[in-house]
Amino acid sequence: MTSTSSLIEQVIEAWQSMQAKTPLVQCITNSVAANYTANVLLASGASPAMIDNPYEAESFTKISSALSINLGTPTSEQMQAMQISAKTAQLNNVPWVLDPVGYGPILAWRSQMTDELLQFKPSVIRGNASEISTLAGNQVQSKGVDSTLSSDDAYRQAYALLVHTDCIAISGESDYILSKELDVVIQVNGGSPLQPKITATGCALGALIAAYSAVTTPTIAALSAHVHFAIAGKLAANQAQTMGSFSTIFMDYIHMLDANLIEQYANIKLLGLKA
Amino acid sequence: MTSTSSLIEQVIEAWQSMQAKTPLVQCITNSVAANYTANVLLASGASPAMIDNPYEAESFTKISSALSINLGTPTSEQMQAMQISAKTAQLNNVPWVLDPVGYGPILAWRSQMTDELLQFKPSVIRGNASEISTLAGNQVQSKGVDSTLSSDDAYRQAYALLVHTDCIAISGESDYILSKELDVVIQVNGGSPLQPKITATGCALGALIAAYSAVTTPTIAALSAHVHFAIAGKLAANQAQTMGSFSTIFMDYIHMLDANLIEQYANIKLLGLKA
Amino acid sequence: MTSTSSLIEQVIEAWQSMQAKTPLVQCITNSVAANYTANVLLASGASPAMIDNPYEAESFTKISSALSINLGTPTSEQMQAMQISAKTAQLNNVPWVLDPVGYGPILAWRSQMTDELLQFKPSVIRGNASEISTLAGNQVQSKGVDSTLSSDDAYRQAYALLVHTDCIAISGESDYILSKELDVVIQVNGGSPLQPKITATGCALGALIAAYSAVTTPTIAALSAHVHFAIAGKLAANQAQTMGSFSTIFMDYIHMLDANLIEQYANIKLLGLKA
Repeated sequence: MTSTSSLIEQVIEAWQSMQAKTPLVQCITNSVAANYTANVLLASGASPAMIDNPYEAESFTKISSALSINLGTPTSEQMQAMQISAKTAQLNNVPWVLDPVGYGPILAWRSQMTDELLQFKPSVIRGNASEISTLAGNQVQSKGVDSTLSSDDAYRQAYALLVHTDCIAISGESDYILSKELDVVIQVNGGSPLQPKITATGCALGALIAAYSAVTTPTIAALSAHVHFAIAGKLAANQAQTMGSFSTIFMDYIHMLDANLIEQYANIKLLGLKA
Repeated sequence: MTSTSSLIEQVIEAWQSMQAKTPLVQCITNSVAANYTANVLLASGASPAMIDNPYEAESFTKISSALSINLGTPTSEQMQAMQISAKTAQLNNVPWVLDPVGYGPILAWRSQMTDELLQFKPSVIRGNASEISTLAGNQVQSKGVDSTLSSDDAYRQAYALLVHTDCIAISGESDYILSKELDVVIQVNGGSPLQPKITATGCALGALIAAYSAVTTPTIAALSAHVHFAIAGKLAANQAQTMGSFSTIFMDYIHMLDANLIEQYANIKLLGLKA
Repeated sequence: MTSTSSLIEQVIEAWQSMQAKTPLVQCITNSVAANYTANVLLASGASPAMIDNPYEAESFTKISSALSINLGTPTSEQMQAMQISAKTAQLNNVPWVLDPVGYGPILAWRSQMTDELLQFKPSVIRGNASEISTLAGNQVQSKGVDSTLSSDDAYRQAYALLVHTDCIAISGESDYILSKELDVVIQVNGGSPLQPKITATGCALGALIAAYSAVTTPTIAALSAHVHFAIAGKLAANQAQTMGSFSTIFMDYIHMLDANLIEQYANIKLLGLKA
């Protein structure tokens, strides 16, 4: 049976494995998040490559260890690359993460693409509560790309999505990881209220899940990335009270994470999947 | 009659209103400014969304509280989105800000688009002295996207533009806000010589004007954003002498601004519009 | 005969000349590097402009002091702009730098464009060891956009490229500048192991070579930019042990460099070109 201590042990192993292997992570992401995401991946021990054109998508996905697709500010060329790379990932057993930024009726173009991408079976779907809930078929009111729904409410509505993926990760005040594989919901606590005030933290988190999925299962990958962020956010908030300095120190802790810090600060809780 | 103290009072009210309402601001901006602009808006209390494709522009502008259009590094798809969003904004009374980056004969493609966008009556036009002066029909020598004209010279040449907008904001060593509404020019002092050394500060300032325009009049919106930046720049410069740390502390003060700091540090001066 | 002391003297003169002239540098670069590159150029004394569309490329390159082309995340419109600007640069004697990010058989689209761009005779070709070596015809295994080959090995394989350019700059643990003009290889030491952990430092270095090439010869331009980065990296590493703070302090030192720091910390070594 799954226990929090065995999960934390697997997070530590995943982190160690990432340091040893430096997985190559292809990111198709938005203009706001590109630089920040690359820095988060480098700081975490992965090797990012933002290959997002349709002409190189297939050949690059084939040699990538993982793929991250984020629909924040799509262009027509990126949209084509997303389809090619997601399909290539499925065919070649490259794990991939889908982040349906802004999913909802107001942003129909990207939402239709998200629907199409689901056929290629993402390893993990991650988003904020509004996005995940809307994607799960519960039409809540979404405003822009920030969430108007609490993650507590969202995770109960997200079960329907497990038909498309093995794992769903919802970020919010508490984070929730829904695992078909382990038949549990894992609540991840920590982080800081300043975290959502730094743009692209959610987008970078999705790419970090992808990086971890190169070295472990979808559930442990999602859990590891969320724990990684939650610890860095909590420790950074202890030292910085405001945005600019928080952002700097947060990146420091993303880089300084190690087995001891995970052991000491990981704060997770198991909930029943059908609770 | 307008007085500096009543203006400062209105700036405080605008800032408080932004904290209360968290306006959704659509930004169509350049690749250099996207991340920085989003962080400035989040730090200031607004909710940014960089929706810049033509397929979602209309539906998103309709639900936005304000729109910011910046012509820094346009793509063909962004150009289409600009036209759709500016038109939609005018039709739906969504306030919007135009930042004609690089306007002038050397950069004809964007300059023609800027000319077209003027028909949709921006709430505020903001730029550096070279851009505003050239847009006003005074062909000064412009070099790239940085200004070669002082803001003192530019504001006397900018009157002609008031036929297209209610408010013009010119950034420079001193900033100048030309208001048709109040029939005055407001000089804003403060900031730091380091500010123009951080790329995209001007672009982010334009987006912040848009954010404020969701909660107040165009003139007070432009004034509030300029005062917001001038105070943060001045306070950051007191603590940091160099670029890297200035940038971090500047963002801290963008976030820490409050009514007391505005009261204490706002440094504005009224000039006659026809002076 | 060339000596290290005369080279360092020329680096100081180049730095002083850049401060005096503030050269306008057109950058066609990737979405990860755009903001960081602009900040590095501003901090170094240059004036960056990210004009990367095909409709303004020709007119803007004509008035630019230098051009930097980076193939990190190309779009179709950027690809067109690259061809136009490179051709215009050659015709108008505007020095230009080519950074063939990710060159190799896996990323064929950009690699073909790189091959085409070589006909316009870049002033300097700069890249990491894998890219330069592959471009020179030695098919080494390249993984993504980070180098898997040491710079020590690469410089011996790069001679073949001197038919296309006067200068080749290879970044790595030590940097190597191959100069046809001076008939030497210059090894540049310094920097920090944290530098490659900050994304886009290599890309920004390429743009800085372009900036220096506006005020000096290709060889001294490449040398000056590499010395500039090596000193800033070394001094920043003395004060910061981790990524977030290193990045901030590194930018501080990029801005604070002066003749004394160059004199005191430049660490270069002359090697024979045919050694």
